[in-house]
Amino acid sequence: MRVLTGLQPSGKLHLGNYFASIKQMVEAQKSEDMFMFIANYHAMTSVSDAKRLRANTLEAASAFLALGIDPQKSTFWIQSDVKDVLELYWILSQYTPMGLLERAHSYKDKIAKGISANHGLFSYPVLMAADILLFGSDVIPVGKDQIQHVEIARDIAIKFNNEHGEIFKLPTHKVDENVATVPGTDGAKMSKSYGNTIDIFADAKTLKKQISSIVTQAVPLEAPKEWQNCNVYNIAKLFLDQIGQEELQKRYERGGEGHGHFKMYLNELVWEYFSEAREKFGYYQSHTDEVAEILEAGAKKAKEVASNVMEKVREATGVY
Amino acid sequence: MRVLTGLQPSGKLHLGNYFASIKQMVEAQKSEDMFMFIANYHAMTSVSDAKRLRANTLEAASAFLALGIDPQKSTFWIQSDVKDVLELYWILSQYTPMGLLERAHSYKDKIAKGISANHGLFSYPVLMAADILLFGSDVIPVGKDQIQHVEIARDIAIKFNNEHGEIFKLPTHKVDENVATVPGTDGAKMSKSYGNTIDIFADAKTLKKQISSIVTQAVPLEAPKEWQNCNVYNIAKLFLDQIGQEELQKRYERGGEGHGHFKMYLNELVWEYFSEAREKFGYYQSHTDEVAEILEAGAKKAKEVASNVMEKVREATGVY
Repeated sequence: MRVLTGLQPSGKLHLGNYFASIKQMVEAQKSEDMFMFIANYHAMTSVSDAKRLRANTLEAASAFLALGIDPQKSTFWIQSDVKDVLELYWILSQYTPMGLLERAHSYKDKIAKGISANHGLFSYPVLMAADILLFGSDVIPVGKDQIQHVEIARDIAIKFNNEHGEIFKLPTHKVDENVATVPGTDGAKMSKSYGNTIDIFADAKTLKKQISSIVTQAVPLEAPKEWQNCNVYNIAKLFLDQIGQEELQKRYERGGEGHGHFKMYLNELVWEYFSEAREKFGYYQSHTDEVAEILEAGAKKAKEVASNVMEKVREATGVY
Repeated sequence: MRVLTGLQPSGKLHLGNYFASIKQMVEAQKSEDMFMFIANYHAMTSVSDAKRLRANTLEAASAFLALGIDPQKSTFWIQSDVKDVLELYWILSQYTPMGLLERAHSYKDKIAKGISANHGLFSYPVLMAADILLFGSDVIPVGKDQIQHVEIARDIAIKFNNEHGEIFKLPTHKVDENVATVPGTDGAKMSKSYGNTIDIFADAKTLKKQISSIVTQAVPLEAPKEWQNCNVYNIAKLFLDQIGQEELQKRYERGGEGHGHFKMYLNELVWEYFSEAREKFGYYQSHTDEVAEILEAGAKKAKEVASNVMEKVREATGVY
């Protein structure tokens, strides 16, 4: 099964990104044919600063490699290195009824939030359809807010295939219901836009600061504490196996330790868990040539797959 | 001055195309830096049949070469051979307010005529902006219905330059008011969509049929005739110099000849005028390899210009 994921180069990755998505991707490499790309064209819909976009793109690549994306097992590239996607985007536009885009929740939501209505934002789902269909993807793992975009890709593929024969594989979305919702420092879903993140590659000082800011109940040091609704516990448990979780629960119930102690423990857990990845991340950040080589090799593999599909598409539509 | 023209590969060329546009282009080659491309991506918004699009593209190239586009003087290529235009199209989309496209008359007109509203048609002006800005064009010769599209390109360029510095040259449109409106066989403006054309490369039989169908007044053979409002005269005069025009006027005024005679004369004029071009067209149609070579060489020249602009655009926006 070919599984395709686009990774937003949107700056620092946090625990929410890791436990809700990256961890599954790294795991899936063992059994699936993973295609993963840094979606820098998509990122242009929100980032217009060149330095930031370029830095974010490289940082994202370094981070994903450090966290376990294995370029031997997976096909991993930067979106803009496979230009075919833009030709397919234009071609698919001819098979995209305006109504399909006008009904897209994501666009309407963004406009409602006051983001200015430009054509890039509006046509985003067509580019996403091109991403999906160009690589013959079977499955697109998504959050619930992205289901509609996969359906749009499917609708476009059906319309194209109806006219030209079975050229595109029809993709399906996959929402992993088992994935933990990772709480942020304020207890709401961890998200960059809420400013409640704990970042994977934060330096020691920043990490300490982020963890200190986790909201907890005010309970005397000696008193037993509730782990059930404690934000610190709910984050810590992601790093612990059954035994580790039970031991931490006992420390809560026993009393004699404050939330400060649990935060210190969480700090250690996070720091320890990502120590190897942090080292690799540092290495890649100072060996960007190596990262570029890995991405080029990935782009080469991706281009081969894309060429096959595009040959059929060009043949079917008459573009030279 | 760099003058850019996109040529629609929409099938057979007629006298209206020639006298309202192609003749001027061929003339302009002497003094201007002409950039001309066969707009096959644009044609996809109306042609979905692969064979037809491919045949039309080659036929258009052969026809324009036969009629005098000189690849030594001008840069002449097929749009889809310079893929940079699609990357620029995506990038410009981020600088295109939706309102700019929603106000486009051409889109609204097409929808009003019952053409189905798809994203290709809607975003057409953004691709046209990319065509214009990618090659540093100074002037875009257009019909009145296309002025707004050049203005959209200009607006997008200004918005981009405001954010990133003077990267794009600001294009201006040019409407040639001196250009003759060529009447069709029914006296209305000659246009493929009215079915009133006289085709440049029609075979002898078809040409005769098209010219026979020109609507004329019923006047007895012997009587003097009015050349002033005669469709035959108004087409014939395009092929004649001052002396030739006056001679024909006298034949009208003298009487003794019917409109059938004037049609025969027009037939000879058309056949003669395009005889060399017709021969060349036949040659190119049976030597498509040669046409392909010419277009490739043109694409190479166009790519060099495009690369220069795209380097600045990528630098400014942070796309790799």
